[in-house]
Amino acid sequence: MNRALLHELELVSKEVNSTLNSMFGIEQEPQIFYKASKHLIDAGGKRLRPFLTLKACEIVGGKSDEVLQIAASIEFIHTFTLVHDDIMDSDYIRRGVPTVHVLWGIPLAIIAGDLLFAKAYETILRTKQSSSSQLLKVLSTVNNATLNICEGQALDLLFEKRRDVTEKEYLEMIYKKTAVLLEAAAKVGALIGGGTSDQIKKIGDFAHYSGLAFQIIDDVLGLKSCEETLGKPFGSDIREGKNTIVLIHALAKADIKVREQILSIMGNRKAKSDQISKVIQMIDLLGSFDYAIKKAEILIEKAKKELVLFPPSQSKDMLIDLCNYIISRKY
Amino acid sequence: MNRALLHELELVSKEVNSTLNSMFGIEQEPQIFYKASKHLIDAGGKRLRPFLTLKACEIVGGKSDEVLQIAASIEFIHTFTLVHDDIMDSDYIRRGVPTVHVLWGIPLAIIAGDLLFAKAYETILRTKQSSSSQLLKVLSTVNNATLNICEGQALDLLFEKRRDVTEKEYLEMIYKKTAVLLEAAAKVGALIGGGTSDQIKKIGDFAHYSGLAFQIIDDVLGLKSCEETLGKPFGSDIREGKNTIVLIHALAKADIKVREQILSIMGNRKAKSDQISKVIQMIDLLGSFDYAIKKAEILIEKAKKELVLFPPSQSKDMLIDLCNYIISRKY
Repeated sequence: MNRALLHELELVSKEVNSTLNSMFGIEQEPQIFYKASKHLIDAGGKRLRPFLTLKACEIVGGKSDEVLQIAASIEFIHTFTLVHDDIMDSDYIRRGVPTVHVLWGIPLAIIAGDLLFAKAYETILRTKQSSSSQLLKVLSTVNNATLNICEGQALDLLFEKRRDVTEKEYLEMIYKKTAVLLEAAAKVGALIGGGTSDQIKKIGDFAHYSGLAFQIIDDVLGLKSCEETLGKPFGSDIREGKNTIVLIHALAKADIKVREQILSIMGNRKAKSDQISKVIQMIDLLGSFDYAIKKAEILIEKAKKELVLFPPSQSKDMLIDLCNYIISRKY
Repeated sequence: MNRALLHELELVSKEVNSTLNSMFGIEQEPQIFYKASKHLIDAGGKRLRPFLTLKACEIVGGKSDEVLQIAASIEFIHTFTLVHDDIMDSDYIRRGVPTVHVLWGIPLAIIAGDLLFAKAYETILRTKQSSSSQLLKVLSTVNNATLNICEGQALDLLFEKRRDVTEKEYLEMIYKKTAVLLEAAAKVGALIGGGTSDQIKKIGDFAHYSGLAFQIIDDVLGLKSCEETLGKPFGSDIREGKNTIVLIHALAKADIKVREQILSIMGNRKAKSDQISKVIQMIDLLGSFDYAIKKAEILIEKAKKELVLFPPSQSKDMLIDLCNYIISRKY
């Protein structure tokens, strides 16, 4: 990652973490419940969504400290979906630490997610600097994103049982599951920053396209990286039978024999590492990784184009750096 | 139930159901997900919370049709907590139908609950009749109630592992888990109806006290009723080791031998019906049911007192009828 971007992300993280922490009292009761709820927040993460909110606010001429609360609310939404997603996927590692349900059991993890969801709205509702009508717009944008995330999660889940998912369906699913919240993060930033409706749309579309690219690269890395770099188990997408763009391409390109071999491992939760590695090799030979990366590159170019009309600024540079990072990241 | 109250509850249900339904499009995708999300809404229920919102609006001189959307949002919150609660408690029947996770699995049920949660806010945000600042107050009240519900659910869960829960702790838990949403339902009704802050407080306290009484009677009926009247399995509170006021009283009053006998069955998920019946008999002999009912009666009297200063009206009569129903209901 570019040094300036890394530095800026660290600065944003620091500010956002302090806002996130300020939403929890000291020793709130029941303590174990609040510990479980804060677990993934404390585990870190890149805070890409709050970063987007802040930079979107700045690029339209707003002051980023006026949008910190709202940036934090987006991170609450993101974390709530992670907690529930981990239960749904039976994932045991996230951000390099054991998942909430692994540490405290499924029942407490469900309500920990619910609490984070409600905390997101509490964070917005406590924002002092903005007008009532602005806050209602922010709430609508965030809420609408959350409704979409639910649909996206449902699609993801239902797709696991299918082997005929199309690329178009996959793109709709990752838009709802991932890109929609990045889009909302950017839009609320530009909204509070005082952007025109055209600017808000442009910055939203920027986040939409880079969000899709981000998820595609995530799916590529999810197949190619080892457990340590990834912070989650190797090959879990294949074991869970996730229809990523890579697998959809591979299944379409493969001959009957290879297709059968891939399908025999996909969705098999007991598949061994060497079986997974063999499938990944086949996918690579079919050019599916290259195909997905190319797709992500095109989306990143589309994203960058949305920024053309914004005058030069440090925030604009940062958003372009972010695009370059998304496409080149290795973890 | 008093005929006038029954009639009014039916009328309210009809209107609220139509508002709830209007929040879902025709054949929204993924269809199976929306079917799962609507399942408990379609299964009925008394719609006591929306009823409270409407009557609280009317008692301060407001028009109930202006608060219908907000009444529906409270029902969405209530239903979302039921869907998640059923997963947490492994309950398989609710409102006389199989629970969401039993029909569609835990992963889909988790997001179905999340969707209903987001629908609650969507319903409020779509309200046209109220001012921005009123809507923000409604959102804060509902959101604050939801944060409390999460804490209440966590307490309920953590209490299951303890056998030294005090009556004070139990009352705090049921306040958060149950009464707080009834209180919010009433307060937002009075708020939109144009009530003074004193009126809003009074009607909120009315709902708070009757909510506690409602939950206490629920706990009594949960032990005494058969599966058919209850719409959920007989003795499940004992099998799950729930510390209801009845059991807390019984454990405090029992001698060592009886206490041991009760404790040997409490929390035993494989306990047989005749073992459960024996425990219930012991509890009855200890006067614990009478104690709980007396407690509920006192709370209902406190609730009624909160209404004294409101001028006579049909809505006031209805709320008093509701109190009488809470204390005398058999299911």
